[in-house]
Amino acid sequence: MSAKNEKEFVKEVTPREVDFSQWYLDIVLKAEMMDYAPVKGCMAIRPYGYAIWENIQRLLDRRIKETGHENAYFPLFIPEGLLQKEADHVEGFAPEVALVTQGGGEKLSERLVVRPTSEAIICNMYSRWIQSWRDLPLLVNQWCNVVRWEKNTRPFLRTTEFLWQEGHTVHETEEEAEEETLKMLAVYREFVQSELAVPVITGLKTESEKFAGALRTYTIEALMADGRALQAGTSHNLGQHFARVFDIQFLDRSGELKYAWQTSWGVSTRLIGAIIMVHGDDRGLKLPPRVAPVQVVVVPIITKKQRETVLQKCAETGERLSPPVRVKLDLREEYSPGWKFNEWEMKGVPLRLEIGPRDIEKGGVTAVRRDTGEKLFLPQEDLPARVDSLLAEIQDNLFKLADRFRRDNTHRPSSYEEFTSLLEEKRGLILANWCGEESCEDGVKNKTRATIRCMPFAEDAENGNMEAGPCIYCGREKGTPVYFARAY
Amino acid sequence: MSAKNEKEFVKEVTPREVDFSQWYLDIVLKAEMMDYAPVKGCMAIRPYGYAIWENIQRLLDRRIKETGHENAYFPLFIPEGLLQKEADHVEGFAPEVALVTQGGGEKLSERLVVRPTSEAIICNMYSRWIQSWRDLPLLVNQWCNVVRWEKNTRPFLRTTEFLWQEGHTVHETEEEAEEETLKMLAVYREFVQSELAVPVITGLKTESEKFAGALRTYTIEALMADGRALQAGTSHNLGQHFARVFDIQFLDRSGELKYAWQTSWGVSTRLIGAIIMVHGDDRGLKLPPRVAPVQVVVVPIITKKQRETVLQKCAETGERLSPPVRVKLDLREEYSPGWKFNEWEMKGVPLRLEIGPRDIEKGGVTAVRRDTGEKLFLPQEDLPARVDSLLAEIQDNLFKLADRFRRDNTHRPSSYEEFTSLLEEKRGLILANWCGEESCEDGVKNKTRATIRCMPFAEDAENGNMEAGPCIYCGREKGTPVYFARAY
Repeated sequence: MSAKNEKEFVKEVTPREVDFSQWYLDIVLKAEMMDYAPVKGCMAIRPYGYAIWENIQRLLDRRIKETGHENAYFPLFIPEGLLQKEADHVEGFAPEVALVTQGGGEKLSERLVVRPTSEAIICNMYSRWIQSWRDLPLLVNQWCNVVRWEKNTRPFLRTTEFLWQEGHTVHETEEEAEEETLKMLAVYREFVQSELAVPVITGLKTESEKFAGALRTYTIEALMADGRALQAGTSHNLGQHFARVFDIQFLDRSGELKYAWQTSWGVSTRLIGAIIMVHGDDRGLKLPPRVAPVQVVVVPIITKKQRETVLQKCAETGERLSPPVRVKLDLREEYSPGWKFNEWEMKGVPLRLEIGPRDIEKGGVTAVRRDTGEKLFLPQEDLPARVDSLLAEIQDNLFKLADRFRRDNTHRPSSYEEFTSLLEEKRGLILANWCGEESCEDGVKNKTRATIRCMPFAEDAENGNMEAGPCIYCGREKGTPVYFARAY
Repeated sequence: MSAKNEKEFVKEVTPREVDFSQWYLDIVLKAEMMDYAPVKGCMAIRPYGYAIWENIQRLLDRRIKETGHENAYFPLFIPEGLLQKEADHVEGFAPEVALVTQGGGEKLSERLVVRPTSEAIICNMYSRWIQSWRDLPLLVNQWCNVVRWEKNTRPFLRTTEFLWQEGHTVHETEEEAEEETLKMLAVYREFVQSELAVPVITGLKTESEKFAGALRTYTIEALMADGRALQAGTSHNLGQHFARVFDIQFLDRSGELKYAWQTSWGVSTRLIGAIIMVHGDDRGLKLPPRVAPVQVVVVPIITKKQRETVLQKCAETGERLSPPVRVKLDLREEYSPGWKFNEWEMKGVPLRLEIGPRDIEKGGVTAVRRDTGEKLFLPQEDLPARVDSLLAEIQDNLFKLADRFRRDNTHRPSSYEEFTSLLEEKRGLILANWCGEESCEDGVKNKTRATIRCMPFAEDAENGNMEAGPCIYCGREKGTPVYFARAY
């Protein structure tokens, strides 16, 4: 690749170390993941970004169905009065809703909220669908767009409109609802770790951080490469809060009328942001093979003499691998191989195969891994098997690197001074004891901008030293360990 | 099945002959396809209805990708000013838009239109993505929700919010755009006929019926069982109309700056309405196997003595068939077999397998076809192959029946009197000559409520007698055959 080409690509991307936030914005544009729309805080998800979302949908939808859920679709518009029924819910969402006040040329008699989440409209429908215990559990999910009027937006991480899935389930008992809440948290954790190669910690949100209207919110939290945490998915036990205000009652097995127990849970296009910020580097994206739109790109190295032979070998190679491998042949004539190398590195394609006269002569192809930059020669005869195992290795390696980073950037300060200096100098996940008082949570937040990401499950060995001790903020003795971090 | 059970089901469904429109409304509720939402004209698509949409999406998305298109996602909100740029487009859509005037607690400086279709927002983005002929063709599709403020709504057929896909492509030349427009029309036709078993006629829309902003609109039109036509999909050649107002220019191969040529095309959840109205009967839905959420339902006929044997044989049978067949075991104990038969007939499951002690003794299962009601005995040894071929036969038969109905209900009147009496007495598709004047089109419409569904392709042998002749309305000699019908 020519020095000029390299320069052209690199000059447009701010190095991560210089300005992580600008690096991120450069990458999402340069890799053609998205573009800014003419409405504040909204974006267009371009085909390359959307193909990642389609892979996420396919892989997660399979898990959602395997755990017994069915998909459905509920209306975009929620009458304002419905949203206002659950007090905590409206308090949480009212400040950030978009309102439709006119339709078909006329002023509406009741304003319509563009759904920020669908509990209100779904509970309204559920109250009509549920009569007896025979109708339970009701296990429904929907893939859709939602709108939250955000002040500070950032592509994929926080946009006015975003895409997500939201599960909404109804159960006979409190125990079943809690079981469902934790089951879906476990599904998210397994999905994000094995498909996106993003390690997460799991736990319970504090009262002040829980979902507006929930009894309890559980979360998966990931650590980005700049040391900030990202809430990557949440699962809520809604208790009977919504059932009571939306009148979701059922005849139980003994013939008594009871309020139902509910859960809701969701992940969004924000996961694409996590993939970028966990794995990417100064040359661009590094996509985990399982969700990469293109897993292998084949680039011909053409010489005048051997043009046809090379192109034919490239086509053959593509055909041998695809399917099941998602292969792209880059046969464009107006770009040099070096330009193409840079472009596909920017787009994070896990494996590049170069095929030139020398490779053909030697009976194979040159492979270059995006994760390590390692160059290998792969003989044609066992190409499919080698590509397959290389993709698995890359997936595995991306997870291992991210998990090592997470562990290296998890700290356990023993004093508030250490706590604040860690936050200033290193960021990362800070496991510190907390007494449970909101005043201490707020104190830390106001002084350091760090929030409690979750109260980890005590039995989770991943979490290291889980000894109780004095609260990191007030010094009271009854503190238990929680994760603090600055977060997106 | 007991007489009581049958009565309970039937009494809630209006017979088709009595009131087709009420029959339709009864069926969509009773089969749990949808429910009315608390916003006028909006509905919730329940899991059973949504599963049909998922099958439609999967089968059509494959075809959209095989023809070289990629999916993307564009914003829900369109600044009002953008929609107003193309004069015909705004004239067509402005009366039926929903407007967001408030966001995040504040009045917006520019009102936002909830997309009724996405040409305006997509063209705005495309003008930034396209610089040269190298960026063309741009072949993009999106699956999303759209909102049109409709006065008269009907589940699936016309709802304020609906789900659809909209393709938006950009080309170097007029010829390529026309080729794409016709290619996608052909994709729709093949898809609807082979997967939904719904026969369609294809052709060009008149000037007054074309898409607001298009150069030309092509359509696929289906005939419902009540003799009314339904526009089932459209493909638009947009010419340079949008490119000129949104400034989509590119450097062509000779280095000149040119306006691009565009197309757009879409089908929606309306297709679900077509399936219901083409195939259904007084007992409920009849779903084409290719899109049926459940292709085979297995109902155990339990006797006290043989309970375990029967249940085990049902489970075995389910496992042998699934996958690839979508099988449902109905093991509910609180419902009788007769109740289940009725329920699954209502839900249109193509094939029912009954397994009782007698079937087991004879070494097979009793199969009942939903399309014909025919009862067959299938020996266990070749069950998978027999089920497979029965499903294919049912798919085929549904298409044949619908196609025969279409042909039987296509008329070729020779006078205006015959034309109007056909419309009054038989409805159906009426092939009649038209002079091309809008005044005659309007005249027919005002007097008979029949509209020109399309000007069929002359070369299409399906269309029968395509001789030119005097205009059915004004009698002028230069008339060419077009399809008239009352339509949804």
